[in-house]
Amino acid sequence: MPHPLLEKHRATLESALDAIATRGYWSAFPEMPSPKLYGEAAPDEGKRAFEAHLGKPFELGQPGQTGWHGGESSPYGVALDVRYPVCDPETLIAAGLEAMKGWQAAGADGRTGICLEILQRLNKQSFEIAHAVMMTTGQGWMMAFQAGGPHAQDRGLEAVTYAWREQSFVPAETTWEKPQGKNPALVMKKHFQIVGRGVGLVIGCGTFPTWNTYPGLFAALATGNAVIVKAHSNAILPAAITVRTIRTVLAENGIDPNLVSLCVATQRSVTQALATHPAVQSVDFTGSNVFGQWLIDNCRQAQVYAELAGVNNIVIDSTDSYKAMLGNLAFTLSLYSGQMCTTSQAIFVPAGGIDTEDGHKSYDEVCADLARAVERFLSKPEVAHAVLGAIQSADTAERIDIANSGALGKVVLASQKLDNPEFPGAKVRTPVLLACDAADEKAYMEERFGPISFIVKVADTAAGIALSERVVRTHGALTVGLYSTRQDVIDAMTEATWRGKVALSINLTGGVFVNQSAAFSDYHGTGGNPSANASYSDSAFVANRFRVVQRRYHV
Amino acid sequence: MPHPLLEKHRATLESALDAIATRGYWSAFPEMPSPKLYGEAAPDEGKRAFEAHLGKPFELGQPGQTGWHGGESSPYGVALDVRYPVCDPETLIAAGLEAMKGWQAAGADGRTGICLEILQRLNKQSFEIAHAVMMTTGQGWMMAFQAGGPHAQDRGLEAVTYAWREQSFVPAETTWEKPQGKNPALVMKKHFQIVGRGVGLVIGCGTFPTWNTYPGLFAALATGNAVIVKAHSNAILPAAITVRTIRTVLAENGIDPNLVSLCVATQRSVTQALATHPAVQSVDFTGSNVFGQWLIDNCRQAQVYAELAGVNNIVIDSTDSYKAMLGNLAFTLSLYSGQMCTTSQAIFVPAGGIDTEDGHKSYDEVCADLARAVERFLSKPEVAHAVLGAIQSADTAERIDIANSGALGKVVLASQKLDNPEFPGAKVRTPVLLACDAADEKAYMEERFGPISFIVKVADTAAGIALSERVVRTHGALTVGLYSTRQDVIDAMTEATWRGKVALSINLTGGVFVNQSAAFSDYHGTGGNPSANASYSDSAFVANRFRVVQRRYHV
Repeated sequence: MPHPLLEKHRATLESALDAIATRGYWSAFPEMPSPKLYGEAAPDEGKRAFEAHLGKPFELGQPGQTGWHGGESSPYGVALDVRYPVCDPETLIAAGLEAMKGWQAAGADGRTGICLEILQRLNKQSFEIAHAVMMTTGQGWMMAFQAGGPHAQDRGLEAVTYAWREQSFVPAETTWEKPQGKNPALVMKKHFQIVGRGVGLVIGCGTFPTWNTYPGLFAALATGNAVIVKAHSNAILPAAITVRTIRTVLAENGIDPNLVSLCVATQRSVTQALATHPAVQSVDFTGSNVFGQWLIDNCRQAQVYAELAGVNNIVIDSTDSYKAMLGNLAFTLSLYSGQMCTTSQAIFVPAGGIDTEDGHKSYDEVCADLARAVERFLSKPEVAHAVLGAIQSADTAERIDIANSGALGKVVLASQKLDNPEFPGAKVRTPVLLACDAADEKAYMEERFGPISFIVKVADTAAGIALSERVVRTHGALTVGLYSTRQDVIDAMTEATWRGKVALSINLTGGVFVNQSAAFSDYHGTGGNPSANASYSDSAFVANRFRVVQRRYHV
Repeated sequence: MPHPLLEKHRATLESALDAIATRGYWSAFPEMPSPKLYGEAAPDEGKRAFEAHLGKPFELGQPGQTGWHGGESSPYGVALDVRYPVCDPETLIAAGLEAMKGWQAAGADGRTGICLEILQRLNKQSFEIAHAVMMTTGQGWMMAFQAGGPHAQDRGLEAVTYAWREQSFVPAETTWEKPQGKNPALVMKKHFQIVGRGVGLVIGCGTFPTWNTYPGLFAALATGNAVIVKAHSNAILPAAITVRTIRTVLAENGIDPNLVSLCVATQRSVTQALATHPAVQSVDFTGSNVFGQWLIDNCRQAQVYAELAGVNNIVIDSTDSYKAMLGNLAFTLSLYSGQMCTTSQAIFVPAGGIDTEDGHKSYDEVCADLARAVERFLSKPEVAHAVLGAIQSADTAERIDIANSGALGKVVLASQKLDNPEFPGAKVRTPVLLACDAADEKAYMEERFGPISFIVKVADTAAGIALSERVVRTHGALTVGLYSTRQDVIDAMTEATWRGKVALSINLTGGVFVNQSAAFSDYHGTGGNPSANASYSDSAFVANRFRVVQRRYHV
C-alpha cells in the first residue's frame, strides 16, 4: 500500500517526473500572487500572518533550547524584532538522528508523500512567506512572492522528484536465482534498504532564504536524512516559518518533528562546529567564497554542495534588435539591484563596436546607450522600487559607493539613492555602470555582488569569447550571455561554454532574462566551474545522499 | 539515428537495464571457462596470447613515451619480464583532454555503444586476461578467469548501464513554452549538452586488477571523460591488455585512442602529481588506507571514489546446519588465501558457545571445529592449490608469519606452506586461525589483509552484534555475516547493519559465500562506512561524473 499522501499528490508527482524528463515548461505552484489562484482572503491573511510574527518570540518546540536570538535588520527599514529559539547543536543533532529511524521506516513513498504535502502547505503560506522574504532580503514584492514562494517551492519539488526517481530505482527486494546446470539453482532472497546518511546541514543565504535553501533541504529530507536549517543571520524568518510548517506536517503524520530543526547561531564558530560534526553527512551552502571554501576544506566527513561567487558575463558581438537588447539588459542589471547570483557583472564589447539593425555602434555608444536604457527603465519611481527593492547588506552598499567613486573604472552611469515613499527607511540604489579595459582584470574579474557592472572593452568578439571562457574557468559563473547575429560566433561561444561548463543564453531581447532560471527546465549551475560544485537539480544532487544496505539469505 | 554499435548491443543493454532495475540474477558474460561457450580454440589461443607478451615490450602507441618499465614479480614464481611504455603524465593528460572533444560529440549513445563493444571484445580475450591476472596476482585459475574476466566485464557493463540510464534522462533539447495569459506565450528552444568533467584517473590494486578497475574505468569513460589507468606496479599486464583493446576499439570507431591511456609510474610521486592535477576530475582507487586517505585529503580538485581497508566480520549466534556452516566458512577463509577485500577477518562467538542441531557447542569447540573444517577442506592438494592460489605480496606473507608466531592471539590453526607441483616457485600459504578475547582489540580491529582470521570471544550474541556494529562504523567493512536461527537476533543484526551501512549475509551454508558479490544484484560496498565511500554500482557512482551545459534562445 503506497502512503496515502503519495496517493493524494500522485498527479503532481507524475507531472513533475514528466517535467524532469523533458525539461520543458512546467510549474506546480502558480507564480502570480492572484486572489483568484490563492483565494480571495489569501493576500490579507498572509500579511496578517506575517505581521503576527513581529516583535514576538517564534516558538518551534525544539529540544535543547538555551535562549532566544533575533536581530534581523530589514533593508526596508521596518522593525522586525522576532526572536528565535537558540538550541544546543548537539541536542539538535541527537534528536535528528533519533528521528531518522521512523523516517527510514516510512520508506521512499512515505517520505515523498510527506514532502509533497509539506510543499503544498508551504504554497498556501506563499503570501506570509513573501512578506517575510521581502522584509528580510529587500526584494521587491513580486520577486519576493515568486522567488520566495512558488519558484522556491517548485525547486523544492524538483529536488523531491529527482530524489524519488533515484530511490524508486532501488527495488525493496528481489529473488536471485542462479542456474547451476543440471543441479538445482542457487536461490537467495535479497532485501535492499534505503538509509539516509545522517544529518544534512543546510546553510541559507541572506538574499534568497527559501529559493536557495529548499533544493538542499528537500533533497536531503526526501532521501531519508535529518535536516538542520542554519538560516542566514539576517533572513531567519522565512526559514523559521518553513521549518515550523515542516515540523507540523511531520508530526501530523506520525514522524518525530525533530527530524527537521532550525539552528540560530550567534557565532560563526557554532556553525563551523556543526558543519564539521561527524554526524553531519551533507552540507548545502549558498554564499561567499570565503566561508564556502572553508566548508569544502574542512567538512571532510560530509558531501558539500556549494554555490559560491562567480563573475557572470555577456559577450556582445552584434544584434538585430538593439533597443530590445538594451531593454533586456537594463532589466537584468536592475532586478533586485543586481543582488542575484545570476546577475551579469561583466559585459564584453569589442573595441571596434558592434553591428546592429540601426547601424554600427561604437564601444562608447554602447556604453552610453546601455546607461540611458537603465535610466529610462528606472525613470518611473513605482517601476524602479518594484524592480530594485532595497540593498540587503551594508557591504553591498559600500561596494556601490566604491564603484561610484570611479576607483574601479570610468563611471558610465552612477548609482543613485532613491527614496521609497512607502518605506522611508529603505536603502534603495540604482545600478552603477563602469567602463574599463580588458586589461583591468582587477576591477571586473572578482565578484562585486550588487548592482555593479562593467562594460569591458575587448579587442574583438573572439577575444571576448576567450575572455569569457577564462573568467568562467578561473572565477566561475552561473550564467553567461551572448548577442550575435552570426552563427559562427554562436557556435564558438557554445563550445566555449562546454569547456567552461556554464549555461548560455543567446540573444535575449524579450521577456526572458539571463539571470532567470526556471525550475524543471533550466539547470541552475552546472557544478562544473568555480561558482558551484553542484546543480539544482539533477541526479547528482540527490544520488549521493542515501545509501543502499542489503541483506541476503537462502530460501 | 542511434550509433550502430548501440544498435548492435541493444539487447544486452536492455537486459542490463532490466537487471539494474530488478537486481535479480543476470550476467552478460559466461563465467565458465568452457570451450563450448568461448569456442574450442579459445583456451589455447588465450594462453598463447598471454605467453606472447612475456619477455617483450608491450607496445601501446601512446604519446610522450620516455622509456620502458616492467618488473612484475609473479606470486607463482613465473618469469614475466614484460616492459610497458613510461609516458610523460602531462602529455597523457593533454592528449586525453584533446580526445574528449570527439568523445563528447559521439553523445551518450555513441559512447555507450562503443563501451559495449569494448566489453564484448574484452570478453573474447577472457582466457588471455585470466592468465595475466593469475600470474600477476596469484589467484587460482578459476578465480582468475571468473573474477578477472566475465565478472569484471559484468561490473564494467553494470557501470556503463547506470551511466547510460542517467545520461538518457537528460533530453538533448526541449521547447520551453510559458503561457502569458492573453499574450503570446514565451517560447524558447533549449539544448542540453552532456560534457565529461575531465580526466578520470583509475588506480588499480594488486589483487584484482580488472574487477576493481573496470567499474571506475567504464563509469568515467561512458560519461564522457578521458581515462588514465594507473595500474598497480605488480599487476600491469591485465590493465595493459585492457587499455590496448580499448584504444583499438576507439580508433576503429573514429575516436582518438589517446582518450584512454596506461600510466606506468616508477615513483609514487608521479601518481601523486597525476592525482592532484587540475585536469583530473575523478580518482577511482582501490587499496590501502594510507594512500587512499592521502588521495581523499589531497585530491581536492577531484571526486574520489575509494575502496579502502576494513574489518569484515561475522556473528555466530546459533545454527541448524553446523557442518554446512563450517564448510561455508572454510571456503570463505581459504579462497585466494583470504586476499579479498570481502574476506571475513573477525568471527564473533559467544563465550557460552552456540546452539546447533548437533547440540550445544562451546566456544573452544567452535574454534577447533572451524580449524578442522579448514584443514579438511584443504586436505586434497589439487583442491588446496585451486582455491588458495598464491600469496600476492611479501607484506601479506610477513603478516601470516606474525600471526603464526602467536603474537596476535592463540593459534587455533597454523598457516602452512604448501608446495605447488605445477609452479615450484609459488608462495602458497594456508589460512591461520587465531582465538582471542573481545578485549584484544589491537589484534583483530585493524585490517590484516590475507588469510588471517580471529575467532573473537564475546560475552553473548548481543555483545557480538554491538561489537560488529562498532567495528563497521569505526574501521569499516564491505561484508558482515550472521548465523542465527532466531528471528529477533536476525532483526537486531539487520538494524545494526542499517546503522553501520554494511551488506549482510545471513545463514550462508551452501554455494554462496559472504565474500562473493554478484554484479547486477549485490551492491559491492555501500559507501556508508570507512571501507568505501562509494558503491559498485549505483546511480551515485555515475551521476557526478558528467555535467549538463545548457543553451537557450527564443524561437
